[in-house]
Amino acid sequence: MTTPANSTAFSGEVWAELRLADASDVPHIHALIHQMAEFELLTDLFAATHELLTSTLFPSPPRPPLPSFTALILVLSPSPLPAAADSTIGSCRLDLSASPLADPEAAAFASPRGGGRVTAGFVICFPNYSTFLSKPGLYVEDIFVRAPWRRRGLGRMMLSAVAGKAAELGMGRVEWCVLDWNKNAIDFYEGMGAEVLPQWRICRLTGAALDKYKGGQEESGKAAAE
Amino acid sequence: MTTPANSTAFSGEVWAELRLADASDVPHIHALIHQMAEFELLTDLFAATHELLTSTLFPSPPRPPLPSFTALILVLSPSPLPAAADSTIGSCRLDLSASPLADPEAAAFASPRGGGRVTAGFVICFPNYSTFLSKPGLYVEDIFVRAPWRRRGLGRMMLSAVAGKAAELGMGRVEWCVLDWNKNAIDFYEGMGAEVLPQWRICRLTGAALDKYKGGQEESGKAAAE
Repeated sequence: MTTPANSTAFSGEVWAELRLADASDVPHIHALIHQMAEFELLTDLFAATHELLTSTLFPSPPRPPLPSFTALILVLSPSPLPAAADSTIGSCRLDLSASPLADPEAAAFASPRGGGRVTAGFVICFPNYSTFLSKPGLYVEDIFVRAPWRRRGLGRMMLSAVAGKAAELGMGRVEWCVLDWNKNAIDFYEGMGAEVLPQWRICRLTGAALDKYKGGQEESGKAAAE
Repeated sequence: MTTPANSTAFSGEVWAELRLADASDVPHIHALIHQMAEFELLTDLFAATHELLTSTLFPSPPRPPLPSFTALILVLSPSPLPAAADSTIGSCRLDLSASPLADPEAAAFASPRGGGRVTAGFVICFPNYSTFLSKPGLYVEDIFVRAPWRRRGLGRMMLSAVAGKAAELGMGRVEWCVLDWNKNAIDFYEGMGAEVLPQWRICRLTGAALDKYKGGQEESGKAAAE
């Protein structure tokens, strides 16, 4: 059933694994974040670097992966993957017999683990907190699949696996954000059982507007006097 | 300048402190969360209990307060407070000489630390993560001031102090949510330098819709087969 892959084409069955990322995944994570920024027309906000990603996502000594900032990598393999390990969060199998898939970026996204595997997506998530539930939840900052691998159930597998992990940990909610014009994504999320909250808006204090609050005591004193 | 307070009235100067909460603050935090739920017309989502708040916000052994789930308490005192301690995040002073303030809930919110102090508000915050910045940020889950104490600069002091702390820790953003109909809050936040993001919507998977993802491997397999 397995078709040997070359650097640009997959056919027949391929196996997917969503696993914990490590520092060797940083170049791919960086490139994926940039793709996501392009997709969202938000490249002007893109300031990620390999160094920052490494130091903040994979500090030394390492933190336990959950509950803390957690990066997951989606890997596609042309041959069966080893049995699920502790680092495996989810998995599925695609059947591409009927319609082979061309991945023009396969070389650029060749897995550091070899075996013809490619990196096809990632998830960044971390715990959040609901005071109404007084329980931790899981916030999915990013869930991203490269274009050639979309519409094949991988996004569903990833979100299902993350939600399953959160549910098993007793977390009260899984939350994430979507752009209001992204109808495909909204339909997909609602189909998975999520509700899209119509009334909440995100407020953000960043850059120079945030920096001016450094030295909070003085600022507070001034503020109270106003 | 200091006027002795009774259980229902403050006048003259009062001193405010935003400090780290501890387990003795749980009954107040619980009551404040309920008030917030009433204000937001969301009491149907209110499921907080003293036990859950204690175990999740104040575990034993304790976590370092930042960067982790962090609760802050706003205390008002009729007499000068001790000099700022490590647990002090922000402070200011109110002059009520011209218009004394009646606090009908002063007895219910008497500080466990005595001295005629009352609990007037709270903040819950925790780290989040921006992949674009590849930096931790601070998410303010709740910032709340009881009704008699509003419009006196306390909210501004609290948010300024939290933003100052985040900026000092090198965090990239401070974020929180606001309801789109809460024009007063939006004006206030924008006046503090925040931008309200118009296009993002929160997606939420919770309750039974979340529980069905338990046992993720089976669910993933099913999903991929669909």
